[in-house]
Amino acid sequence: MTDTITLSVDAMGGDNAPRAVIHGACLLFKEHSNARFIFHGRQELIAPLLEEFAVLKPVSTVRHCETVIAMDEKPSQALRKGRGTSSMWMAIQAVKDGDADVAVSGGNTGALMAMATFCLRLMDGIARPGIAAIWPTLRSDIVVLDMGATIGADAQQLVDYAILGSALARCLFDAESPTVGLLNVGTEEVKGLESIKEAGRILSDASGSGFTYHGFVEGDDIGKGTVDVVVTEGFVGNVALKTAEGTARQVGSYLRTALKSNLMSRIGALFATSALNALRHRMDPRTVNGGVFMGLNGIVIKSHGGTDEIGYKSALNLAYEMARANLIEKIGDTMKRFPIKAAPAATDPASEAKPA
Amino acid sequence: MTDTITLSVDAMGGDNAPRAVIHGACLLFKEHSNARFIFHGRQELIAPLLEEFAVLKPVSTVRHCETVIAMDEKPSQALRKGRGTSSMWMAIQAVKDGDADVAVSGGNTGALMAMATFCLRLMDGIARPGIAAIWPTLRSDIVVLDMGATIGADAQQLVDYAILGSALARCLFDAESPTVGLLNVGTEEVKGLESIKEAGRILSDASGSGFTYHGFVEGDDIGKGTVDVVVTEGFVGNVALKTAEGTARQVGSYLRTALKSNLMSRIGALFATSALNALRHRMDPRTVNGGVFMGLNGIVIKSHGGTDEIGYKSALNLAYEMARANLIEKIGDTMKRFPIKAAPAATDPASEAKPA
Repeated sequence: MTDTITLSVDAMGGDNAPRAVIHGACLLFKEHSNARFIFHGRQELIAPLLEEFAVLKPVSTVRHCETVIAMDEKPSQALRKGRGTSSMWMAIQAVKDGDADVAVSGGNTGALMAMATFCLRLMDGIARPGIAAIWPTLRSDIVVLDMGATIGADAQQLVDYAILGSALARCLFDAESPTVGLLNVGTEEVKGLESIKEAGRILSDASGSGFTYHGFVEGDDIGKGTVDVVVTEGFVGNVALKTAEGTARQVGSYLRTALKSNLMSRIGALFATSALNALRHRMDPRTVNGGVFMGLNGIVIKSHGGTDEIGYKSALNLAYEMARANLIEKIGDTMKRFPIKAAPAATDPASEAKPA
Repeated sequence: MTDTITLSVDAMGGDNAPRAVIHGACLLFKEHSNARFIFHGRQELIAPLLEEFAVLKPVSTVRHCETVIAMDEKPSQALRKGRGTSSMWMAIQAVKDGDADVAVSGGNTGALMAMATFCLRLMDGIARPGIAAIWPTLRSDIVVLDMGATIGADAQQLVDYAILGSALARCLFDAESPTVGLLNVGTEEVKGLESIKEAGRILSDASGSGFTYHGFVEGDDIGKGTVDVVVTEGFVGNVALKTAEGTARQVGSYLRTALKSNLMSRIGALFATSALNALRHRMDPRTVNGGVFMGLNGIVIKSHGGTDEIGYKSALNLAYEMARANLIEKIGDTMKRFPIKAAPAATDPASEAKPA
């Protein structure tokens, strides 16, 4: 590991780019002075921002790209148009070339995943990429994947997610053998899809080699933090994440309404201002911003496109931590420890891969 | 409709049966004096409770059943053992025989669904049953189905859920043409499983006949209340519901911790006691207890097994309202209005039916 961590940043990705991106980088640098940046995008837009956030200037390089991938572009279009030329592609390419340790973009998820897979290629032994979320729970943060990189997964792909998720958990939580659960509609062994039951059998046999297999978990086990890594296919993972976000906003709204409901509650809210601010911070989705692309020969972090500098700082910070913790090495190590690799996948009609 | 509404109640279903069941019935009767009860279960256990909740005695009948279905019994076992003899079966049978308007049980979901389907049979034109949840949202309550009656759904089964859910929404919300959304991983028409896209085309063509088709919705649209009816297959619906329950508990726990964090916040919480109690009541899962079995020739309501008298009262109240609103008739009416029925289902590998 070098003394510095270099982040390759798509400065044009997201609704508030490039300002929020550069501002977020500035916030990260104030915490981590060994961070270095390569910003990809329009020179004429980025240069003035580096004058404004002048502390970044000595630690940043700008690589000019004319092409910017739109938020609504289809992955195939984006690849045709942006391969080798767009800020998104060049941000990833810098990781491939060894110029940077990690790439970050707030651009269109489908396009970013297509480009990252095309440019960095899948790791040996991994059939499909995944997107992992870091999910705050009552116990601690946990890893949940896949968040929608692909739809459907057969048994072997779920096992791959378990390996990838375990490696990520080892980086994040410093746990030697993180616990892994398969998301299902019940915890009994007889329930659920054949693919999940088969993955459970494979993981149960391999438990102890870089992770500890817990068994099936249900939706409410995510918020409880029952396990360190929750494994599911992309459709379910995506719906679960967004449903949880929606519920958190809903409860937050209930609370605001309740505290405004009468004079006494308004007075109470005044007394509790600092506690309520701490709660607001804890529930702020910007503080847990960042999806980790898993299964590729390089680290790519996806930021929410609609976020601000606080959100970008979180995504850049996640990228920084993943690079510092040597995520790719840890994945390789976890894969090597896994005793049985590529057992023939169970034939499950629900598991055919489809692009999200 | 008769002046009275008769509820056929499995008095033995759930962890706190029969006490919590009878107590819950007593709470319902205090609000709805035209409710009548048939309790199925062990005479020797139920009789003393009717002495205790004496107001129920003149409006209740007890039908003795020796057999009780255990919470962990497999549906097939339960059917073999309990058909024609168990309190669960007999509660459903009374609806079939016309002795009661609706059946309620807090017993094992799989067994209850198997017995209800076997006893009441599927409605003409419906291929599979579903379980609908009444989901509180920022706008108002909405209907979400399927919650896990079955796993996977092809396009036609999703369309059936849309019809069934619309009828339920018409009963609950008095809306003439409820809005319907298909749960997906994106709102663009190109995204998601083939079965969902095909269902979207069918519903779009039929929009206006008893419901208004909104389009695709995402997980966070549930909590927002974007539509009156959210349609999804059972695995995803089950995970979404449990994830939302887990998130609500998590945020509630964050709030309690925050309000205890310092002296000022404790004082604030004292001032806001009545508002916080109202919030607690609003978030109390017992107040929205009850899954509605859909697609059968009779109404069956599933209560959470682990709930108390407040929870049972909610489930019984839901049953009472469904019977009073003539749910079965409204479903028939919605089906009749639907212009194209039983279009050949799209071949989708992800849609093969599997028992949950």
